[in-house]
Formats: sequence, structure tokens, C-alpha cells
Amino acid sequence: MKVSMERAALLKAVSQAQSVVERRNTIPILANVLIEAEGDTGQFRATDLDIEVVDKAPAQVERAGATTVSAVTLHEIVRKLPDGALVTLTDDSATGRLTVEAGRSNFSLATLPKEDFPVMASSEYASNFSIKAAALRRLFDKSKFAISTEETRYYLNGVYMHVSEAADGRVLRCVATDGHRLARIDTDLPAGAEDMPGVIVPRKTVGELRKLLDDDDMDIAVSVSETKVRFATPDITLTSKVIDGTFPDYTRVIPQANTKRLEVDASEFAKAVDRVSTVSSERSRAVKLQLDEDRLILSVNAPDSGAAEEELAVAYGDERLEIGFNAKYLLEIASQVDRENAVFMFNSAGDPTLMREGSDESAVYVVMPMRV
Amino acid sequence: MKVSMERAALLKAVSQAQSVVERRNTIPILANVLIEAEGDTGQFRATDLDIEVVDKAPAQVERAGATTVSAVTLHEIVRKLPDGALVTLTDDSATGRLTVEAGRSNFSLATLPKEDFPVMASSEYASNFSIKAAALRRLFDKSKFAISTEETRYYLNGVYMHVSEAADGRVLRCVATDGHRLARIDTDLPAGAEDMPGVIVPRKTVGELRKLLDDDDMDIAVSVSETKVRFATPDITLTSKVIDGTFPDYTRVIPQANTKRLEVDASEFAKAVDRVSTVSSERSRAVKLQLDEDRLILSVNAPDSGAAEEELAVAYGDERLEIGFNAKYLLEIASQVDRENAVFMFNSAGDPTLMREGSDESAVYVVMPMRV
Repeated sequence: MKVSMERAALLKAVSQAQSVVERRNTIPILANVLIEAEGDTGQFRATDLDIEVVDKAPAQVERAGATTVSAVTLHEIVRKLPDGALVTLTDDSATGRLTVEAGRSNFSLATLPKEDFPVMASSEYASNFSIKAAALRRLFDKSKFAISTEETRYYLNGVYMHVSEAADGRVLRCVATDGHRLARIDTDLPAGAEDMPGVIVPRKTVGELRKLLDDDDMDIAVSVSETKVRFATPDITLTSKVIDGTFPDYTRVIPQANTKRLEVDASEFAKAVDRVSTVSSERSRAVKLQLDEDRLILSVNAPDSGAAEEELAVAYGDERLEIGFNAKYLLEIASQVDRENAVFMFNSAGDPTLMREGSDESAVYVVMPMRV
Repeated sequence: MKVSMERAALLKAVSQAQSVVERRNTIPILANVLIEAEGDTGQFRATDLDIEVVDKAPAQVERAGATTVSAVTLHEIVRKLPDGALVTLTDDSATGRLTVEAGRSNFSLATLPKEDFPVMASSEYASNFSIKAAALRRLFDKSKFAISTEETRYYLNGVYMHVSEAADGRVLRCVATDGHRLARIDTDLPAGAEDMPGVIVPRKTVGELRKLLDDDDMDIAVSVSETKVRFATPDITLTSKVIDGTFPDYTRVIPQANTKRLEVDASEFAKAVDRVSTVSSERSRAVKLQLDEDRLILSVNAPDSGAAEEELAVAYGDERLEIGFNAKYLLEIASQVDRENAVFMFNSAGDPTLMREGSDESAVYVVMPMRV
């Protein structure tokens, strides 16, 4: 193999590959990236056996071929090369080394045989559709904070992407929850997604996917089977196993009949929660909300270190209510609001509370109260 | 005590105080800042028993007095208050609480008696002088990387500030070394510093001092005794014990007779060292320098993972030389060069090497070679 590529294109391709590679590996070849050169393309493949990413970049291929080298080392080298450099990768099967040349720099890296590289089995996908990057990004960005980190509840360690019935018809929906809070985000159902099986996309895949979604208008090709999900741009294909479990029936958790309505500037609310929670150093800090006619008092009481109280002007017209929440949960939910005021719908101090942005029903959050 | 201050002024004063406070304390009052309000000034004092910082800021004092509260909590609160807020601190001796009020926010913090706060004993200073912040910053910024972290060699855990004889007369000099590399930085001797005793300024003090030195033209008042050093701006006074030990005779370490002269672009050199060291994951990476007529080849050989080589065009007119160095040490030394080319003076592969910026003798570095 002998292939030359522009440094920026090579860096982009290798970046995504090395990020999928796990830093601690018992299987040496999983630390490597499979480089394949053919036609006018260099292709870079990396996997952790659950996720596989394949990046393509334009290349001048002098001699087609393939080999594998350490993804992290190759990435570090390319990152440190000067911008604009032309990088040439040459495979020497006699020495078992890959030479990386750029200007007056010359690197020789240990390789492992390409035959040993585990390539993910291809799948039949039940459903294939296309969706704009901006819409897909919103689905995952607004839901991922609620993914559970409890390994025993493995079926909550991801985002449940599925087709559902909403007020205005069928939607593509992402849901995540850890039992304390829940996010439910909808978008228009793309053509071709109607029969998509519901899948739980693992946390790591959600993180890797995010890197494909920076360009708002890019079309992302999504393919879904019962066991796998694939996201593809023209250059990058990310394939992931999905979590083999059943996502719980979240609809029962979403309160339908909460009537006490609070409307508040989300940013002011988040800042106030952040401030009052300063006085407590406990891990799960409880913030008390006292609601009265157009008035909200946030307070924290930490007997050892101190107390804090802040008043906010809000829109509230219902009866007096006192309710407590974990400060971190309130902050995370309030920070999801990017356009309008936050609207909270309460029932009682012991019931789950609903939050949405203005009257928008396409992004709904639920948070469980805490006793204060 | 009742005192009101503008949020920005209060934040600045409390910032410096909380940074001196150690995060883990067995003595509760050491986590606190002593607030004293009198005349038209709020004064904030914090200590770890080795370093004491006193910050002053303009204040409207309604009722003079003093108390102590958690430095970290007060800092966090003030940091989170909106810019431009007027903050009022009120001490309630009946409840033992300090109230912090700003706009609609209200905090009540636990206090400890001001009488328990350890105030550092005042000293007679043998020497008092004034120096521009820029000059003092250069002395410490260019030497501190070489401070030893080995606790057994406690007398190397700081920067040795003293008066010395240089080629052009007497200078104020800072020296740091960890036995592997050494930095020796000189500046003009300020009036009044002639009889200053040499002191070893501890690493933490060097870090805290740095925050006083952002304004180039500010005059810093320096006072030195055998046991203490004090740095003061009009607003902030930093007093520190010095390390009770004898700094070794560093002059013997600085080679005087190295004749093989290499001149190289410091930034190109640093980048090349960084690149070639990528192939080795070892902690102490050895880089080999091969010098020949106007040519430098940098190389690293890591049998398991690979090898790297890079050539640089340099000015070198002496006999062939091969010499190895720790990559990290080379990088750190090269990054001290900010104006001119780096000039290395070698003797043999086993002898210490000297580095300076161009022909400037006021900043000199020494690095020990490694066998490669």
C-alpha cells in the first residue's frame, strides 16, 4: 500500500476512528485502525466490537492495499504535523511497518495483519430513511442528559428511538430516563421510517453520532434493524449494536393531569437555582420551590453551612404550593430550554412534575420531586 | 458588621483569598476568610499558615466589624451573582451567621469567631525594594518549570531568589532546578535590594504571586527577611514563609566551557521534538539529536511501537555529535524562548548542555543528557 493524503482530510478521518477505539484494550488489534487504500479513496475503520466507524477521504493511491496501525499514535502524529502538509503512508510487508512521511518528518509504526481486524457483520436493515442533521441532533442533544448510568438497569443506558403517536400524528421520538427524570423529544416522521423497530441507542453511540451532526443541512442516512442502527454521511458510516432489552413503558410516567402552571424565564430560573444551591456541599442538593400568586421563592437549607433564598417574578395563578427537587436535575432540565420560557406543570409535592418550552409539546421533560 | 461592595470588586478580593485556602483542612477556620470592615475599606484575609494573603477593596461600611466565613462558599456565591450587583454583608452575632444580600438573593452563612483566625506574626524585613510587575513575572515565569517536585529534596521545591554577580555587575536572580534541568534568570538589581538575603520561595507562593503580576507597569513592593518574603500591590499583600534550607551551589552545574554551538528556531525545534516523541508511550521519552554541518536530525526509537525521525536546517559548524535528552525537558526549555532563536552549547554526549535565547546571558538553562 502507498497512499498520499492532505493532512486536514487525513486528520478528520482518523479523528473519528480513534475516538471509537477504547483506551484500555485486552485485544491488541482493537487499538488499531484498519487503513484501506483503493481507487481514489483512503478508508479508515475502527471498532470496539459494539460500534464500528468507517471514514472515507480523498487520496492519491499509488499502490492499493491495507494494513492496521495504532489509531491513537497515528492520530497524534497527524495532529502534530503542520497544516497543509501532504502525508504519505507506505506499507512495508517485509518489515511489518507502516511509514508515515510528511516534509522532513518520517515515522515508522508497528502494524498488525489486516486479516485479524474484526469487521462487523453486515445486516439486513428493516428500515431506511433520511433526516436532516439538525433534526437528529435535537432528538439526541435534548434527551441524552437523562440517560441512566446504572449498569444494572442496562436497558436505560441509552436513548430509546422509536415511532410513536403524538397529538398531531405519528412522530419519530427519542426518550431517555434514569427513573428520576425523563426527556421525550419528537420530530416529524421521516418518509420511510414508518415501520422502524424501536431501538435503544447506547450512550457511547449517542456521543459518537454527535460528531456527524455539526452541519445543520446535511442529510443523514439512518438504517435500523432489531439489533443494529446505522448513521451515515457521504464520508462517515457509524454502525452500532443496540441495547438488547426492553425500554419500559414511559408513557405512564408522563403526568397528563397536572394543572398548576408556572411560567418562568428559563435562564433566570437556572441561574437562581445555581446560586441558592451554592450553600450546600451535599451531592444531592434539594432546592425548595415555594409558589404563590406570581411569585416563586427558591430556597436551600443546609444546617451546617448555611441557607439561601431567592425570589423570582413568575406567572403563577394557582393555589400555594411547596415542592422540592434535586438542584442538579432542575439545572439540567432548565438548560434544555433554548427558545422560550420554561413552563412547569405541577400537581402536588409528591407527584412528578412536567416541564416544556412554552406551549411546544415536541419536547417534554418530567422530573420527580424530593422531600424537603 | 454591615458592609456593601460592588460585586466585581468583591469577587476580585475574594478570588485571591479563596485560592490560598487549602481544599482539605483539618483545622476548620483555615477554610474561612477573615472579613474586616472599617473606614471605607473591606479587607479579606486568608491563610494556610505558610502563606497569608490580604486583599483590600473599596466598600461602604455602615457598621464596622469583622467575622469569618467559608472562603470557597463566599467566592462561589459572589461569582454566581449578576454583574453589577451591589452586595451587602451583614454579621449577626446573635445567630452566628453572615447574611449576604444582592438584589432578590439572600444567603445566610455559618461563621467562626474572628478571634480564632490565625494572623501571621509580623516580621522585620531586612530588605525592601520596588520592582515592575513585568520584571518580577519574567524572573518567576521562566524559572518555575524547573522546580523539583521531590519532597525529600525540600530545598529544591521553590525558586531561589537572591542577589548575584553577573558579567555586567550585580543582578537580582532567580534559580530553580530539579537535578535534571536548571533555569537561571537575571534582572537589573532594584535599588534597595543590595543586602537582600537569598530566599527559597515555595512553589505555591510562586503560583499565588503570579496573580499579582498581570499589569506590566505596576510597581510591586518586595520585602525580604531570612524567614519570610512579602509581595504587595496597593490592594493585595502576599506574605509567605520561605523554605528553611540551603539552596545548593548551582554555579558548579552551569557549564562554562561548552564550545559546540547550535542555533535553531525555537518554535520549529519544539514542534519537531513533540512530533518525533509521539511514537513512544514511555514516561521518560528519549529524543536523540544527531548534529552535523548545518543539519540536525531528531529521532526516537521505541522498539515495540515504532520509530520517528525529523530533519531540521540549523546553524552548526562543529564536529559530528550524537546526544540524547528527555523529550519533556527539551520541550519545556524550548518553550521558554520567546524572542530569538534558541542557542544550544554542547560539550560531549555525557555533559550538561547549556541553552539560552540568542546571545542573551540573562536567561540561561541547563539540561542533563540521557543515554540513547
